[in-house]
Amino acid sequence: MQNRIKIAIIGYGNLGKSVESSILQNSDMELFGIFTRRDPKSLVPLTKTARVYHLDDVEKFKDQIDVAILCGGSMSDLPHQGPFIANLVNTVDGYDNHALINDYFNSMNIASLNSNKVSIVASGWDPGMFSINRILVEAILPIGETYTFWGNGVSQGHSDAIRRVKGVKNAVQYTVPKTSAVDAVKSGKMPQLTTKDKHKRICFVVADENEDLLRIEDEIKKMPNYFEPYETEVNFITEEELKLNHSGLPHGGLVIRHGKTGINKENNQIIEYKLKLDSNPDFTASVLLAYARAAYRLNSEGVVGAKTIADIAPGYLINKSAEEIRRLLI
Amino acid sequence: MQNRIKIAIIGYGNLGKSVESSILQNSDMELFGIFTRRDPKSLVPLTKTARVYHLDDVEKFKDQIDVAILCGGSMSDLPHQGPFIANLVNTVDGYDNHALINDYFNSMNIASLNSNKVSIVASGWDPGMFSINRILVEAILPIGETYTFWGNGVSQGHSDAIRRVKGVKNAVQYTVPKTSAVDAVKSGKMPQLTTKDKHKRICFVVADENEDLLRIEDEIKKMPNYFEPYETEVNFITEEELKLNHSGLPHGGLVIRHGKTGINKENNQIIEYKLKLDSNPDFTASVLLAYARAAYRLNSEGVVGAKTIADIAPGYLINKSAEEIRRLLI
Repeated sequence: MQNRIKIAIIGYGNLGKSVESSILQNSDMELFGIFTRRDPKSLVPLTKTARVYHLDDVEKFKDQIDVAILCGGSMSDLPHQGPFIANLVNTVDGYDNHALINDYFNSMNIASLNSNKVSIVASGWDPGMFSINRILVEAILPIGETYTFWGNGVSQGHSDAIRRVKGVKNAVQYTVPKTSAVDAVKSGKMPQLTTKDKHKRICFVVADENEDLLRIEDEIKKMPNYFEPYETEVNFITEEELKLNHSGLPHGGLVIRHGKTGINKENNQIIEYKLKLDSNPDFTASVLLAYARAAYRLNSEGVVGAKTIADIAPGYLINKSAEEIRRLLI
Repeated sequence: MQNRIKIAIIGYGNLGKSVESSILQNSDMELFGIFTRRDPKSLVPLTKTARVYHLDDVEKFKDQIDVAILCGGSMSDLPHQGPFIANLVNTVDGYDNHALINDYFNSMNIASLNSNKVSIVASGWDPGMFSINRILVEAILPIGETYTFWGNGVSQGHSDAIRRVKGVKNAVQYTVPKTSAVDAVKSGKMPQLTTKDKHKRICFVVADENEDLLRIEDEIKKMPNYFEPYETEVNFITEEELKLNHSGLPHGGLVIRHGKTGINKENNQIIEYKLKLDSNPDFTASVLLAYARAAYRLNSEGVVGAKTIADIAPGYLINKSAEEIRRLLI
């Protein structure tokens, strides 16, 4: 039997739990353990046999871990946690602060070169699968426009922002692509569209008793950056309705390239990549695990340093031989 | 100024012409010349400055060609032409006989190892972009089903088959995905579907004068493999209508993965990759050129031998630096 890839989960929120359940779908992997900043005894893992350790103890186990999946947040966890772990073992993360990816990449690269390991940064779906598609479509159709739409899906950052409004007990915010914008893009008009032109925001809000709903709605709609520039819809519902109908974490989105080919650019060529996800964290976790396989294989071949999805051939991601890939999937 | 990648076109049919016009969209490439089995003087290229040579003269120019794009057919041209050219220069092709890809790969590998060059085989859109998606979706969502649909699009093989029927002057055949099958897949029912369950065939036929149209329709519908197992529609039209409405080479298709995640497989995750192409040869040519860039770069780094799309990282395909990719496309 082949040695299974030993995965460590760093941080046990929604994403960490999804990594734990997704490992069970990959026969070439096994969970080494969960590392948390909380008291390990306080944590109840999904799988009964899972071992739970304190984050401070990662170094003790560095020779037993093949790949660590970094499940912390991009804002406050990964910038320091990432290089710390990459200095010990192979890592994969879904760092998603697009504007700072090069800085994060550089600090992860230093750490991984130092440990002679591989760190794959900014994987997941956006960045991640959407990035692969943005690269491929622009490589294939150099003349054209690419559009990225997000949703329908829950934005946790925007839901949190609503919950900070006075008088709000609970809230969920959905980012939704505007049908008119999607249609304009599909028609081939190649419109210039900003993020706010492409999306609207639909909010489901549970207010505290006796609050002025108009004041809450007004405060949400006027919140700068988060809601002010967007078409925003606010719906007040009960806590029960919120639990019943809005407790999942669906998401999805669309990358569309409209390109032109031919000696007179007479031919329209449209490439569309679309995700419709019941569970955003499950899907992200599933992508991270495919890249964990790649990190493990690349490092076994002697590759070291930081990588992104742009640096990794598709064959490294799947549990099949090159010959099987050619026979079954090409 | 950067040295531009010098591209040779091997074979000047629809695909060769599309490669010629697509080179103009890639600022890091230039046409070295067109190689043909015909009398070079008889060939009128799209671009006035293009040089035309006889195929027998490729060897003379091997040190001046960076990558040769093989534009011959998979059935009778590529099996011998491929290894012959790969023995001289880097090559890219769209070999599309899925059942024999491993054999073709092995013969190209021997030739490329011998010449210390790279040959990228079975690129294009299917095999090619669709193959990348089949690999990625199965790597990411190990539990699930993948469906490939083709069309709406012109199948040249099926159009040729109709033209061989007695009394048929001209014909065009469209492969069209069955809406009922696409809907069943999108609904998440994960049906078991064969190629004939997923597609129907719509034929536009110009008959010779005074022919028995019912006999022609019957012969088409009963043609084994080509039409017999499929839902087939035959429409008789005039030569003028055929020229006016059916002279393009549109195509397209869809790869859908329906996966299940979660500890109880409770979450449906759907990935869809869709192409809608005004010109099948233009799009195929555009993909081949992106892989020509990869072949050139890989060989410059010392890589040799045969490769498929599974072996090539996305970053090699695009005319941007790794830092630019991270900043602009990740």
